[in-house]
Amino acid sequence: MSLIVVGSVAFDAIETPFGKTDKILGGAGTFISLATSYFNKKTKVISVVGDDFPQEHLDLLVNHKINTEGVQIKEGEKTFFWSGRYHNDMNSRDTLITELNVLENFDPIVPSSYQDCNFLMLGNLSPVVQRTVIERLEKRPRLIVMDTMNFWMDIMLTELKNTISMVDVLTINDEEARQLSGEYSLVKAARKILKMGPKYLIIKKGEHGALLFNKDEVFFAPALPLEEVFDPTGAGDTFAGGFIGYLSQNNDISFENMKTAVIMGSAMASFTVEKFGTESLHNLKQDEIFARMKKFIDLVKFDYSNHKW
Amino acid sequence: MSLIVVGSVAFDAIETPFGKTDKILGGAGTFISLATSYFNKKTKVISVVGDDFPQEHLDLLVNHKINTEGVQIKEGEKTFFWSGRYHNDMNSRDTLITELNVLENFDPIVPSSYQDCNFLMLGNLSPVVQRTVIERLEKRPRLIVMDTMNFWMDIMLTELKNTISMVDVLTINDEEARQLSGEYSLVKAARKILKMGPKYLIIKKGEHGALLFNKDEVFFAPALPLEEVFDPTGAGDTFAGGFIGYLSQNNDISFENMKTAVIMGSAMASFTVEKFGTESLHNLKQDEIFARMKKFIDLVKFDYSNHKW
Repeated sequence: MSLIVVGSVAFDAIETPFGKTDKILGGAGTFISLATSYFNKKTKVISVVGDDFPQEHLDLLVNHKINTEGVQIKEGEKTFFWSGRYHNDMNSRDTLITELNVLENFDPIVPSSYQDCNFLMLGNLSPVVQRTVIERLEKRPRLIVMDTMNFWMDIMLTELKNTISMVDVLTINDEEARQLSGEYSLVKAARKILKMGPKYLIIKKGEHGALLFNKDEVFFAPALPLEEVFDPTGAGDTFAGGFIGYLSQNNDISFENMKTAVIMGSAMASFTVEKFGTESLHNLKQDEIFARMKKFIDLVKFDYSNHKW
Repeated sequence: MSLIVVGSVAFDAIETPFGKTDKILGGAGTFISLATSYFNKKTKVISVVGDDFPQEHLDLLVNHKINTEGVQIKEGEKTFFWSGRYHNDMNSRDTLITELNVLENFDPIVPSSYQDCNFLMLGNLSPVVQRTVIERLEKRPRLIVMDTMNFWMDIMLTELKNTISMVDVLTINDEEARQLSGEYSLVKAARKILKMGPKYLIIKKGEHGALLFNKDEVFFAPALPLEEVFDPTGAGDTFAGGFIGYLSQNNDISFENMKTAVIMGSAMASFTVEKFGTESLHNLKQDEIFARMKKFIDLVKFDYSNHKW
């Protein structure tokens, strides 16, 4: 099924206890669409870059069968740039530089060839830009998934809630769920957020896994205990890409299939954190993904069928 | 199979955002043995109380078929008392009062009727007391499980490591695993700790679940997402009790059965946090435990069998 990914295609510069990078390929749209490309060969990306953006980065996307017709290249402008430094625990980071550049006045154009969209993934961006894409689609997609972050809760909560009310699945982390709902208990937070519009909520807990809620049920996806987290940048985006990539591949948006999709998102994210930036997502093999899924299955499998009191 | 539980039988006074208690029944040995009593009707407890300890608390244990012959009552002395206040997030707490009293010079006596011990659960206590019990058993139990905490790492690390080297299963929380190993990654921490002697390590992560390691494998048990955590006191002890209670009930110490036992421990702990102190463990029904286990099974169940690339 045809899938649109909206999100930044950008430069990152990353420092971790293991090393640092120059400006490398980054951005939510990049991580998401690279992840979806392993499941869906009809991924179409909407984004914007400056004329400083190397053709080789765009070629990487095209080589993954990602349609980049919706990526605007702004002459005389510069690409979005983010730089950050991770602390020793790899769970927290300081932002060193944020240069919005082309994102400052991003007007997302939806090419006519994108109008067959069945699945829409709104990567973390201004909720106004996210809503604009929904409004510019002639037919509402079968499933709209939206990622966002605390930044938008801080500076444009009304716009954010407006966009949230239009989507089917919202993905945020645990602290953001608490901020958005005003509830500490994630079960209570989920109940409040599901009243804001979305039918499904995914709460990402990083190294502690992820929770998928609908009105009546909850599913828990563990994170794989890793020897070493090398660079967490893009893990949440990769998770979202694996999630919607899997759903759109088999065109099944039942809650049961979403459970497997959450595990697939977690599996894809477990690759991303093993190397700097998008590197892990450049040349994954289906066998590797399959073997990683097997690890998730084994991680939580236990037998209670023979128990007698 | 015969099971000995060693641990404090004591008074707690607890403050949470939901209310506060006077001196109520507490102590690691109490929570553990109440939890094991739902699985093993041959639980024998080793502990010490003062002459201020109400007979009704001891009766509660006896009514749960717990043998209290090994609970010394010290005339003219007072029972161990701990008081604490939980913060709003219920994940951290301040200790307000610690009165060691009878625990200060606790010399654990092993009654001769306890010498048939197959399973030994060493609740959190001085590692010297824990080791003394091992040494006073004429025959080494089939399985020794040991709980401990950062306090003993801070003040008697050498004694602690000595006792750790004698046990089969160690249970500690994530911060303690990091402190004991000097490794941030829990996978690396587990590898180091398993070289200290135990064949199995359980890392408790509170609301984020628990990890069970052996030399080659890892199993993850989620925590049940709860509407409200009312009082976390005793959750780790209840977990340990459910774990060894289940293992000793079916007398199977394979890694596979330990996985189910970790889930059982988590299920039992999920009851404890729903009420103050030991209250949840007074009158549980097997049906309730069974239904809670079903929730854990459903929480992580997903279907990947039909997937085609």
